[in-house]
Amino acid sequence: MTKIIIIGGVAGGMSAATRLRRLMEDAEIVVLEKGPFVSFANCGLPYYVSGEIEERESLLVQTPAALRARFNLDVRPYHEVIAINSTEKKVTIKHEDQMMTESYDKLILSPGAKPFIPPITGLSEATNVYSLRNVPDLDKIMANIHNEQPKKAIVIGAGFIGLEMAENLKKRGLDVVLIEKAPHVLPPLDEEMAAFVKNELVNKGVEVITSQSATEFKNQGKLVVLEDGTELQADLTILSVGVQPENSLAKEAGIELGLRGGILVDESYQTNLSDIYAVGDAILVKQQITGEDALISLASPANRQGRQVADVIAGLNRKNKGSIGTAIVRVFDLSAASTGLSERVAKQAGFDVAVVHTSGKDHAGYYPGATEVVLKLVFNPKTGEIYGAQGVGEKGIDKRIDILATAIKGGLTVFDLPELEFAYAPPFGAAKDPVNMVGYAALNKIEGLTDTIQWYQLEEELAKGKVLLDVREKTELANGQFKAAINIPLNDLRCRVSELDPTKEYIVSCHSGLRSYIGERILKQAGFKAENLDGAFSLYKTVKPEELKYV
Amino acid sequence: MTKIIIIGGVAGGMSAATRLRRLMEDAEIVVLEKGPFVSFANCGLPYYVSGEIEERESLLVQTPAALRARFNLDVRPYHEVIAINSTEKKVTIKHEDQMMTESYDKLILSPGAKPFIPPITGLSEATNVYSLRNVPDLDKIMANIHNEQPKKAIVIGAGFIGLEMAENLKKRGLDVVLIEKAPHVLPPLDEEMAAFVKNELVNKGVEVITSQSATEFKNQGKLVVLEDGTELQADLTILSVGVQPENSLAKEAGIELGLRGGILVDESYQTNLSDIYAVGDAILVKQQITGEDALISLASPANRQGRQVADVIAGLNRKNKGSIGTAIVRVFDLSAASTGLSERVAKQAGFDVAVVHTSGKDHAGYYPGATEVVLKLVFNPKTGEIYGAQGVGEKGIDKRIDILATAIKGGLTVFDLPELEFAYAPPFGAAKDPVNMVGYAALNKIEGLTDTIQWYQLEEELAKGKVLLDVREKTELANGQFKAAINIPLNDLRCRVSELDPTKEYIVSCHSGLRSYIGERILKQAGFKAENLDGAFSLYKTVKPEELKYV
Repeated sequence: MTKIIIIGGVAGGMSAATRLRRLMEDAEIVVLEKGPFVSFANCGLPYYVSGEIEERESLLVQTPAALRARFNLDVRPYHEVIAINSTEKKVTIKHEDQMMTESYDKLILSPGAKPFIPPITGLSEATNVYSLRNVPDLDKIMANIHNEQPKKAIVIGAGFIGLEMAENLKKRGLDVVLIEKAPHVLPPLDEEMAAFVKNELVNKGVEVITSQSATEFKNQGKLVVLEDGTELQADLTILSVGVQPENSLAKEAGIELGLRGGILVDESYQTNLSDIYAVGDAILVKQQITGEDALISLASPANRQGRQVADVIAGLNRKNKGSIGTAIVRVFDLSAASTGLSERVAKQAGFDVAVVHTSGKDHAGYYPGATEVVLKLVFNPKTGEIYGAQGVGEKGIDKRIDILATAIKGGLTVFDLPELEFAYAPPFGAAKDPVNMVGYAALNKIEGLTDTIQWYQLEEELAKGKVLLDVREKTELANGQFKAAINIPLNDLRCRVSELDPTKEYIVSCHSGLRSYIGERILKQAGFKAENLDGAFSLYKTVKPEELKYV
Repeated sequence: MTKIIIIGGVAGGMSAATRLRRLMEDAEIVVLEKGPFVSFANCGLPYYVSGEIEERESLLVQTPAALRARFNLDVRPYHEVIAINSTEKKVTIKHEDQMMTESYDKLILSPGAKPFIPPITGLSEATNVYSLRNVPDLDKIMANIHNEQPKKAIVIGAGFIGLEMAENLKKRGLDVVLIEKAPHVLPPLDEEMAAFVKNELVNKGVEVITSQSATEFKNQGKLVVLEDGTELQADLTILSVGVQPENSLAKEAGIELGLRGGILVDESYQTNLSDIYAVGDAILVKQQITGEDALISLASPANRQGRQVADVIAGLNRKNKGSIGTAIVRVFDLSAASTGLSERVAKQAGFDVAVVHTSGKDHAGYYPGATEVVLKLVFNPKTGEIYGAQGVGEKGIDKRIDILATAIKGGLTVFDLPELEFAYAPPFGAAKDPVNMVGYAALNKIEGLTDTIQWYQLEEELAKGKVLLDVREKTELANGQFKAAINIPLNDLRCRVSELDPTKEYIVSCHSGLRSYIGERILKQAGFKAENLDGAFSLYKTVKPEELKYV
């Protein structure tokens, strides 16, 4: 009888265990979990803080007893593996201060990732600073909230978990200050897309401080000092500045590590030690777009990997093809999602990169309740290969990013996006879905019908002597204006084109980019050199509000 | 200067016109529309009946004046083209009883599809029978509703428009009887998936009569007689039994027609007559999965075709690759969608067909508000090619079908579905999305881990001597039971497996199919011959409620 030990009873580990049982009824399957719970809802933890998830029990998806009954699994919480002897194929386990050993035929490591704890002065004396990885962490935060009745919370780190904690603490009624070391919140997104999220946070009353990190905790954490010397009061602080592979056990056992301490595995999840496999947030995977090693700490790949390693052990033909990374966060009434590479990362990877931004509606505009869907596509301007996509809006963002993630995974290019046929009825979409439209926009760029400049290039291009032509209606100018632009409403452009100077180059903008493209086409066909300000005024206003004038 | 005439000013025609202008600023572009409106919201018309779309103006997306101002288009409503002279390149137009001619360099036909009007006795004398294609049709229906205050409505035909009309008339407060000639509502879906829709209709108070057609209207339409002699009172009747290509003008002009009267075009939308193109619901397209000619009357392909024919005329390299057909309908609180081929159509096309049904949640079950997502995948059991998919549920159906439509369009197979990485946070999805799960289920079937039988095979298989094993908990049996099944709850199966007869073959069922698969795996590995009832009790109950017993 094969004996399989799995270290770590969440996502990857538990997926492996249950799949193994379905494939190997006779195997002995032991799951060792150092914490009190297995198979809990990691991603749901922040929502318990606000009470949006009301019952703590909802977070505890499975119990050892239920897993024994259904899957005949031997699940042992509070069992921490402290050593692996790969020669003798044994693990040493610590349980209630007792040591014991278990032998294995196959060993699967699913230790996960742990919060990165930056070396901040005074952290060890602080009594009100928490990170959030598991239910015990959550219990500590909730105990603080119940016992200390905190008024002021600081969240350090504006990634996915930081944003969710900021939202849920705010919804609970605390004053929240969010601090991010990067120049903008939600660093996986590009700056202009993240700006929508920042604005939503600010509109909902969260104070956002970027390009700053915490350098010191004073008064047992009651004061948080920033790089610039600012001191902020904090009744409660959440540290969420990223995660790192939980690799100490693997390292001790002689398992090879790679980039940033990630566990190295082959396509079959096999480590360098025989009969030892690893899955989940602790392993390095192939970023499918760059082809390079990456740490991608997300629940979806972890679950897939757990299932696949079970298949490998059971003798099925299965390979880890890698991951592209798709993620979403809801921030109050907005959702923001991304898949694949951001513009920044794609450029860092050395790709030839073009981007387009489009703005559309989540469903037919004539049907009640339509909301704005802003999409960004990152692609190769020659081949049309799609490197990544980002989306923000109130509704339907998950759908568009999931479609684009499917397109990337399937090797579809920009040329395929207009061809996609989506389910259209007025409550659900539009005859030309935002995904089709972002494809058309990218295609126009590839085929040379449009030349675009990005929001961050505008000042530089105007400094070269180009002229900004705003084709919005006069009435729209009350929403703000570019500092230096001439205004000719699009509908007047054909008859007023003689007012323009043929020796100048024009950059055309409107509100969202639809009319400016039409204006650009009119100018180009009239013999002008013209470019379209991609994303137009609305995007520029979101990311550079301080550059506008109001007359 | 090139002069382009476009016949038909909705979807395909108007997409062609505006794209042409962006590509050919100097062209003369004339849009001839026989009706009063161009670019109106066809798909929104039913929602005005209930008042869900409140303003009639919302349905009128564009006006000739606006199109003139923005796109310099010459849009002429009430201009019906009654003849095409392809030799002289002229069209004859009827306008307010005047005849006129216009020459063209290029002619685009976008005449659309018209309601099929069955030859029902007494139809011509009926004063309260309407079909719904355009705003004038809607105005007639609304005039009847306002003037006659109808109480009883009959909708003949339970396709997409019929269902939408049934819902909206019911929401307006009328008693609604829905009559469908096919054995089930929503014929593009397979029977068991359509059964969810039927149940929703019935639950919301719509009377549904299937396998019946109307044979006669009596009393100016006040009585509708069915095949079986039933007479139904009708204050208002909607005829929505399908559409057919609006092909008379094309036929008269000598344009070749094909299957069911569809206009034949090549990949460049060129008809057999030079400089005459056609797009939209009236043309035959290649069904991309079967490779055969098909009529696919949907807004999304029509819009794409309109844009593409403009590209062709402007000299860009563009080909019509065909369509797969993706559609959705909301029926009260349920949505039902499909893409590609149904099981029935795939079998008719001669494919080797397997299907799986899965049931999951639209988002993480531990987060409030999760609802059921039922998916059906139609695929090749050897190659994994995906032929089609269907989905029903309250939320997130559009997303899953759009993803699967993208997979089909991109040539992805069943093997790719588990690999797809979706945006997961508790409000949006699950770590294993229903699309991943339906992929896993199909893969289990392809790889021989499961053997399934379908709901329609159960009686036949039991008649062969197989035994139905229901692994639900005892408490669940109150929701209804199979007429002949033994019950061993899944968690007891391992220790009670000795109660089973090794000479028998077992069909395992549970509520939704997850536990029955586990049960099947336990039995198989214990040496039994076992199969899984695909979709399990819940699907069977939906489609065959009369076969159950309640104890």
